[in-house]
Amino acid sequence: MSTGETPRFTVGLVQMACGDSAAANVETAVDLIRQAAAQGAQIVCLQELFCSRYFCQREDAANFELAEPVPGPTTARCAALAADLDVVLLVPVFERRAAGVYHNSVAVIDAGGALLGRYRKTHVPDDPLYHEKFYFTPGDLGYPVFETRFARIGPLICWDQWFPEAARLSALGGADLIVYPSAIGWHPAERDTEGAAQHDAWRTVQRAHAIANGVFVAAVNRVGHEGPPGGGLQFWGGSFVCDPAGRILVEGSVDGDEVVLAECDGGAVERQRRGWPFLRDRRVDSYAGLTARLLDGAVRQGLESDRRDGERSR
Amino acid sequence: MSTGETPRFTVGLVQMACGDSAAANVETAVDLIRQAAAQGAQIVCLQELFCSRYFCQREDAANFELAEPVPGPTTARCAALAADLDVVLLVPVFERRAAGVYHNSVAVIDAGGALLGRYRKTHVPDDPLYHEKFYFTPGDLGYPVFETRFARIGPLICWDQWFPEAARLSALGGADLIVYPSAIGWHPAERDTEGAAQHDAWRTVQRAHAIANGVFVAAVNRVGHEGPPGGGLQFWGGSFVCDPAGRILVEGSVDGDEVVLAECDGGAVERQRRGWPFLRDRRVDSYAGLTARLLDGAVRQGLESDRRDGERSR
Repeated sequence: MSTGETPRFTVGLVQMACGDSAAANVETAVDLIRQAAAQGAQIVCLQELFCSRYFCQREDAANFELAEPVPGPTTARCAALAADLDVVLLVPVFERRAAGVYHNSVAVIDAGGALLGRYRKTHVPDDPLYHEKFYFTPGDLGYPVFETRFARIGPLICWDQWFPEAARLSALGGADLIVYPSAIGWHPAERDTEGAAQHDAWRTVQRAHAIANGVFVAAVNRVGHEGPPGGGLQFWGGSFVCDPAGRILVEGSVDGDEVVLAECDGGAVERQRRGWPFLRDRRVDSYAGLTARLLDGAVRQGLESDRRDGERSR
Repeated sequence: MSTGETPRFTVGLVQMACGDSAAANVETAVDLIRQAAAQGAQIVCLQELFCSRYFCQREDAANFELAEPVPGPTTARCAALAADLDVVLLVPVFERRAAGVYHNSVAVIDAGGALLGRYRKTHVPDDPLYHEKFYFTPGDLGYPVFETRFARIGPLICWDQWFPEAARLSALGGADLIVYPSAIGWHPAERDTEGAAQHDAWRTVQRAHAIANGVFVAAVNRVGHEGPPGGGLQFWGGSFVCDPAGRILVEGSVDGDEVVLAECDGGAVERQRRGWPFLRDRRVDSYAGLTARLLDGAVRQGLESDRRDGERSR
């Protein structure tokens, strides 16, 4: 096509509860991938760390045994499936990169089975019951965009979803679809008072990435309760796909294992950006401060001095 | 306070329809500012270009006659009012800076009447019926944050609201409250098919700035139809204030002149950021690409080469 538009593609999100057995979790995922493909999905995404329970609720070095290399057993199994079903697969993996260096990653396997590469979670949380800084070295691969058979995909992971910078960099890199494998839930004690606002904030911030960037956004999140009764985390599911105007196309339940399926009109990316041409108008000359931690004290003075120097030199 | 928290402050947004007479528009605004103050508002914000109709629907050099300097007659009038009522006023002005250099600005007047400074709209749109690039030179003051009597305020203007970069830079500069004077409406021919999604996208993207940054966000937008019957723009009002979790505290009607008032608990900024510590986890080492127009071709290769060089030098 002269405009370089992406044609229609169908996304399937695999939302599921996980148990203690990695082998059983993988079989559940494989069954749901097959269901998704049977329903027409061309791009299937699994949830963050789908092979296991969300082990980051505690800091325990024994959990590093759950890690595996990429490529490795899980990507090999999924590559065979991608060849068999002719679907693109986004496969989250607890990646063992070297002794003592582990990442929260997602492997991207093209339809046909080729491993195109991986993304390593860039923004790593550390909060009560989400002790990820103990397990995962922050990613060092930037924000890659993968040219798959059916769409250009920018994979990001969970906590990344709160950072507009990550979504923007994926869009600038050419993504038509940003996908967030996730593991987010309620602290049971907070659910009554904060639960609705937390879930709505999560949905809202990701819809806003679609709007601000003119891209499709998909989130895939686990379900089920993990941890002791009355404690632990109640994962809220609610996997969804929204279009480049931020309209939710489909949304999963808060508690069921299911395939959440949406047909996406790739041409909507270009149409949306023609109607609301935000990328045309970014003031890249004014964004230097984004690489600062905060614009306080000396940092601010430095930027202002740079600006004055710039003006004098014109 | 040891935490540097901002105490409670009350925001009043003045939403109104404008007519042909600048004098009459100013009198309407003054009446509504007095109403807002009487209701307890401490920070009152007027809508974008409140002195006139939204003249940018057409390109006409005669409209430059509407511009005035800052300080000038409108800021003088408002400074007297800010002294009289002891309120902070955010006063949008079509600013004449020099012959041939005009800005879409907002002046910030502290309680007591001191002109603290101005912000000049950074992101300038140009779309059918929004011909702002004809009238306004893009702002060159960055994203200033004003320490007013009642809160640290980051003023941005309308089209800026679609750019997460602008909100982020205001928050990094210390804003507790980001305020967007606006002039946005429906093309009457699109309202039935696109209107709800457009309005919702506008609301969503600004709520997301509150969430991603842990700040209060306020938008103040005009109402009324301007232009020929069946054409022109139907401004959608809907002025609102949301808290740092993105919860709408108050929202105006789509068609009435009114004061939209919200009491804000400044301590919510710090509480929200402790619960969801996004500013702690920004990966500023990975954001260099944000100052690029797009990450395609040569630009991408340059960034990747920089990253490799950085790794080699460690």
